[in-house]
Amino acid sequence: MLNDLFDPKAVAIIGASQDPTKIGNAVLRNMIDSGYGGKIIPINPSSPEVMGLKCHPSIDDLESVPDLAVIALPANRVYDALGACVKKGVNYVIVIAGGFSELGKEGKEREQQMKNLITNTPTRIIGPNTLGVYFPHSGVNTSLTSRGMISFLPKGNIAFVSQSGALGLLTMDAVSEYNVGISAFLNLGNRIDLNEVELLDYFASDKNTKSIVLYLESVPKGREFFDKVKLVSPKKPVIILKSGRTQESAIAASLHTGAMASNDAIVDGAISQSGAVRAFDETEMMDYSRVLAYSSKLRGDRIAILTTAGGVGVITADYVSSSINGVGLKMAKFSDETKSKIREVIVPFASANNPIDLTADGSISDFDKVIGILENDENVDGIIAYPLPQTPRMGVGVVEVIDKYKNEKKPIVVGVLGSQIAKDLIVEFEKRKIPAYPSVHRTVKAVKALRVYSAYVERRESQ
Amino acid sequence: MLNDLFDPKAVAIIGASQDPTKIGNAVLRNMIDSGYGGKIIPINPSSPEVMGLKCHPSIDDLESVPDLAVIALPANRVYDALGACVKKGVNYVIVIAGGFSELGKEGKEREQQMKNLITNTPTRIIGPNTLGVYFPHSGVNTSLTSRGMISFLPKGNIAFVSQSGALGLLTMDAVSEYNVGISAFLNLGNRIDLNEVELLDYFASDKNTKSIVLYLESVPKGREFFDKVKLVSPKKPVIILKSGRTQESAIAASLHTGAMASNDAIVDGAISQSGAVRAFDETEMMDYSRVLAYSSKLRGDRIAILTTAGGVGVITADYVSSSINGVGLKMAKFSDETKSKIREVIVPFASANNPIDLTADGSISDFDKVIGILENDENVDGIIAYPLPQTPRMGVGVVEVIDKYKNEKKPIVVGVLGSQIAKDLIVEFEKRKIPAYPSVHRTVKAVKALRVYSAYVERRESQ
Repeated sequence: MLNDLFDPKAVAIIGASQDPTKIGNAVLRNMIDSGYGGKIIPINPSSPEVMGLKCHPSIDDLESVPDLAVIALPANRVYDALGACVKKGVNYVIVIAGGFSELGKEGKEREQQMKNLITNTPTRIIGPNTLGVYFPHSGVNTSLTSRGMISFLPKGNIAFVSQSGALGLLTMDAVSEYNVGISAFLNLGNRIDLNEVELLDYFASDKNTKSIVLYLESVPKGREFFDKVKLVSPKKPVIILKSGRTQESAIAASLHTGAMASNDAIVDGAISQSGAVRAFDETEMMDYSRVLAYSSKLRGDRIAILTTAGGVGVITADYVSSSINGVGLKMAKFSDETKSKIREVIVPFASANNPIDLTADGSISDFDKVIGILENDENVDGIIAYPLPQTPRMGVGVVEVIDKYKNEKKPIVVGVLGSQIAKDLIVEFEKRKIPAYPSVHRTVKAVKALRVYSAYVERRESQ
Repeated sequence: MLNDLFDPKAVAIIGASQDPTKIGNAVLRNMIDSGYGGKIIPINPSSPEVMGLKCHPSIDDLESVPDLAVIALPANRVYDALGACVKKGVNYVIVIAGGFSELGKEGKEREQQMKNLITNTPTRIIGPNTLGVYFPHSGVNTSLTSRGMISFLPKGNIAFVSQSGALGLLTMDAVSEYNVGISAFLNLGNRIDLNEVELLDYFASDKNTKSIVLYLESVPKGREFFDKVKLVSPKKPVIILKSGRTQESAIAASLHTGAMASNDAIVDGAISQSGAVRAFDETEMMDYSRVLAYSSKLRGDRIAILTTAGGVGVITADYVSSSINGVGLKMAKFSDETKSKIREVIVPFASANNPIDLTADGSISDFDKVIGILENDENVDGIIAYPLPQTPRMGVGVVEVIDKYKNEKKPIVVGVLGSQIAKDLIVEFEKRKIPAYPSVHRTVKAVKALRVYSAYVERRESQ
């Protein structure tokens, strides 16, 4: 039934407006601009037409029932509009307005009244206090933020559920730099009805989704949620950013989305037992979601590093193998055969040990040959590759080379440092769904996340 | 005397060439394009002219003595060219070619021969195995990398010394995204003569330099070096990225620049006792160099957070105050007066507690007022501010507001999340020398680096 939310045949926008200062204006604009193929129905009693679309005075008057309605009205008008949606039999209602439980007791009561309205009806509420949803595959975009302010991501394989709206939109905006694709974005807001447990269920069987990211400030249905994660995670990786880790920040979280956070040690244990990978900030969250969506399992902790800049190899080796300020994996020890084969490829003064430094003379074809050799060394579990586009013999062709090895047993995680030339190359890797990152630390942490997840799945499979 | 290196009246380029495949071509092109105001003297016996400049057959023939010569020739021709420079009395010679101690015993012997050549002469060597130097204030740019491949930074206040060439250039390229300014970049390479100890001395009294960053893979003159850092650091912050932390990566480092690294626990202790701030990767290194160059001291560990996105505030609060996955500072507890003053500024549903969440309604003027209030609360030592440009009432004017408080007692470190709109705002902050970062984690780590340095200076001053 959640399909009516993700891929509705008709969407009503209650409060659709020609006035650009109204949120009903931005919501309608985003629906139109995002390529939604169904029917958009603006609802506004004071306009016959909005943005060239026929406007209806109220939802009661509609001939058919929209699957989804967006209430883009101030808080004091939400109750009546919701009542009309329930009466009409709308399945999903997004309530944008804030001003409910995050304000305290009185707001909480108004939320309870809304919940009472939908009891024993098929109507479900998303929100209130939500910036909306964005589903690029169906073109549904009820966000109230305009395209000039943030970038909406293309179609892809990451499902992103955020309790906080601004954090969700900012994070989407940030990863738009690499044109990261998503299958869905949902801002839960005050989460009085539709919640992360049901969404996990939906994404578990959604063919577009390959990893699921959740930003949560509280986990009210803790047991139910982690039981669900445990069911989903062996099939689809789940990444959780659970903030409010300290007592003070938990209080801040409660002021923000009106929900109390719980003891972090318990949360941390529950995350790890459920097979989810924990992220600690907005960058880690999206970085991990890509490596987990795109890569095959990392079957052990022995990592080979391939670079064209010696210093980058050394810093990476530090992060890979150190337990203090590092991720505590291992540097692969190559077989003698591997080393002698590598020596045949590289220039005499380059290093055939791990980290392999091809020097600035390293070419695309050298990358190809060395990765091929590493794929055949049973002492290597995974590869970190730095094809640095600032050197003369490197270029966009390296993407195809690395893509060729994507279905081999050993995952390859890519690092590309620098400014525009580097970002452009990361975008090319993203197109092929090869995880690529703009710094040493982010690259190594992504590899660690992949290992944490893979090790969990291995343990589960061997049980 | 190092002034002859940083601001030479004449620079000879031995091996200057019209052939774009030769490194002498790139070096000459970079000297011309970087606005160097002195005399550029191409040396090449087979061309009468290169890039419109008169070419001399050899350095012997010059009427005057250049302060700086760049040997842009293959390794096997370096010795003779260096001999000619010594004979002529050139003060500084940059030897670009690799193929020396990083190759082993034989290369080490050739380095010894070069050292013998300069013994008891005024000639000093930079390199060999160096990508060169770049001094934006004088326009000296002997880099062999072309502008199409990497970006050269504008004039600024950060001196950057890198043992590794590629890592140095990649790092410059990466921070060019924010137009970070530098006072100098030097790649030491195999470092057979000129070294980081002398450079620290120079930068300590260089008026353009406000912080000094060193990327080192080995510290051969350990005691001398750290004694020097200890002298310099109370006046000018020193940031050290010392890689080769594990035994394996130390071996990799030795293959890369021909020098053995030492035990990391000893290095770590020495760094902290010397008052330097340690960075662990290329991003931290440049992030810390900016906050330390631009900010006043952070006199305590009580941090106030100001944001327009609640979730960003909660994640930041976690990183600020947690010891596990955090920096172990404290969240400031505001006085009642502060809280009631903040309440007068903000919208009713915004939070006046720490982290302060102005919500998406937060305006530039709200930022101004709240920072003014925080400056007057003695429970606050420093401020993290997130002016998020994706919200309608925020904009570039916030830079001026924060700039106004720059000379107040409490340092303000800025975080701006998102894609182009965020980067553009960071560039504006950088222009005013206000430290600004594109992620929560980088913002919080910069604040911690500032506190580590400030606490060291306080301890030294109270002794």
